[in-house]
Amino acid sequence: MLVSPRNPLNIGAAARAMANFGFSHLAVVAPFEAHWREARSAVGAPELLENAKEYATLAEAVVACTLVIGTGTLTYRKPEQRVVSLPDLPPLIQLELERSGRIALVFGPEKHGLTRNDLSLCHMLLQIPTDPRQPSMNLGQAVAVCLYELSVRRAAIDAPARSELHSSAPSGDLELLADVVEQAMLAADYSRGSLRESNRHELRLLLRRLSPTAPDTRRLLGLFRRIVWRLNRSRGRD
Amino acid sequence: MLVSPRNPLNIGAAARAMANFGFSHLAVVAPFEAHWREARSAVGAPELLENAKEYATLAEAVVACTLVIGTGTLTYRKPEQRVVSLPDLPPLIQLELERSGRIALVFGPEKHGLTRNDLSLCHMLLQIPTDPRQPSMNLGQAVAVCLYELSVRRAAIDAPARSELHSSAPSGDLELLADVVEQAMLAADYSRGSLRESNRHELRLLLRRLSPTAPDTRRLLGLFRRIVWRLNRSRGRD
Repeated sequence: MLVSPRNPLNIGAAARAMANFGFSHLAVVAPFEAHWREARSAVGAPELLENAKEYATLAEAVVACTLVIGTGTLTYRKPEQRVVSLPDLPPLIQLELERSGRIALVFGPEKHGLTRNDLSLCHMLLQIPTDPRQPSMNLGQAVAVCLYELSVRRAAIDAPARSELHSSAPSGDLELLADVVEQAMLAADYSRGSLRESNRHELRLLLRRLSPTAPDTRRLLGLFRRIVWRLNRSRGRD
Repeated sequence: MLVSPRNPLNIGAAARAMANFGFSHLAVVAPFEAHWREARSAVGAPELLENAKEYATLAEAVVACTLVIGTGTLTYRKPEQRVVSLPDLPPLIQLELERSGRIALVFGPEKHGLTRNDLSLCHMLLQIPTDPRQPSMNLGQAVAVCLYELSVRRAAIDAPARSELHSSAPSGDLELLADVVEQAMLAADYSRGSLRESNRHELRLLLRRLSPTAPDTRRLLGLFRRIVWRLNRSRGRD
């Protein structure tokens, strides 16, 4: 829900963030008519702007909501309600949805945020943890951040395991690769005598940092074997 | 890091999000000169835009970075690197920072994203989990979402336990209850004339702090209706 948004770009940005994160019910309270018309007619405006509901007051807009969450900077006012930090919100939302509650997330106008009167309709205030030196966020960005958090953490509740790392090659294969690379360096007159010991050490560390997969390790082995063969062949000709 | 950003508003938005979440090292690669100048001279441009570093190529920009993370929609291309979902990124970042690594988060130009060539400089690709029907995010919003996640989850490592919530009646029911309580107060000569506005405000806040369940709200409504009836009846007798 946007209360009296001013900048059509911000309205568009809020709608886009909603579309990005799979939300569809946009309500606009007491919009400035010209700006609202402009935002709705903008090129590429998401469909949900067309379906947005319009209300004269916040009280009307939240009439069916069981949990009304206000947003805004708390720097300039003392909060009169419970304040929840955004990362702590998803479990509360989840709980409310399990109870078939209806939730409204309310964003005030760009300059001054929600009025004291509008805030009094909120069950809690949501705070995005920002740097105290620059606490005030752009409206479109604040909407995006909130919806991202809600969409991701809600999804995380029945999420499957995390993305897996591709398995890296076994240590023995890396040693084999180190051998061949070393041969190539020797054949190229790169490393000799006294340097050899520490060179091997660096090479081992390097390969473990790279942590190539088993197939990549085979590819690299093939490459270096070919290099060694070429170098020795051209050397034989000299 | 922004590669060839086009829209000065987006550059400003990215810088603002950085300031919001406590990041300070902005680098811009191959910017369009006019747009870049415009963004830097905009009213209220964060200080970090002034201190931003400029590079001709991404390769130069990331030269000192130990972990380069590319961003962008993967809808139109097959990723050639490991893909990490944003919620899974913070532990990787944490690990890298513990190793005193330097990390770059790279955003491509608005229209087409990073080129294949630029992507090849990335250790991994970051994906923001968006709705497949509207996967493409606005640049400024994407930056905000990524930096929020990094700033919050990094901080969250020693965060305390979550807070809990109890269920509640819809906002409209609370307004109804407030009406009846107000009538009771008036009937009891409790609140009059000039006090009425602020009394209503406090009442709203009180009810939301109490956050009664729907059945409790009905009970309270019944109670206050009875009180109003009684008070008016006794008043009639006077």
